[in-house]
Amino acid sequence: MRFFVEIIIMPKKELLDPQGNTVKNNLHLLHIDSVSDVRIGKCIHMQLEANDRDEATHIVEKACSELLANPIIEEYTFRLRELSNSEPCSS
Amino acid sequence: MRFFVEIIIMPKKELLDPQGNTVKNNLHLLHIDSVSDVRIGKCIHMQLEANDRDEATHIVEKACSELLANPIIEEYTFRLRELSNSEPCSS
Repeated sequence: MRFFVEIIIMPKKELLDPQGNTVKNNLHLLHIDSVSDVRIGKCIHMQLEANDRDEATHIVEKACSELLANPIIEEYTFRLRELSNSEPCSS
Repeated sequence: MRFFVEIIIMPKKELLDPQGNTVKNNLHLLHIDSVSDVRIGKCIHMQLEANDRDEATHIVEKACSELLANPIIEEYTFRLRELSNSEPCSS
């Protein structure tokens, strides 16, 4: 089975996010004043092959915890979507 | 009305993504071989105040096109979720 995976890696809620704060201030300079709590993270899209959804989940967990996310300062979530064989690429 | 917004900004599909390629190669070094088409982008979470969903959509479109995304090399999508007044923060 082939899966499309979207992984979201964000700075932990209890940590300050200076990059998000800078973006918020710049949005205010563009007169977009109604925005608050801006936080910036990473989004990773990939495709993977696995025998079933459980194996796919295990692979993504391993990729996140061993390479993609820094567990001290970041937290991650992911969504899996099964691809049909005729779907070449998807987002 | 208060909205939680998740904005995903990815490199355009027709462009190479060297960062994604590097991550894919590093996943292979961790014996995660079943992964392909790795692409890395940004995820931005924010909250905003607007009179209705249309106004919120307009604000996010303006923020993306004027500050957050580079339209030459990136494309963006976003999801809006209405927050109840009792929800202090959400992801």
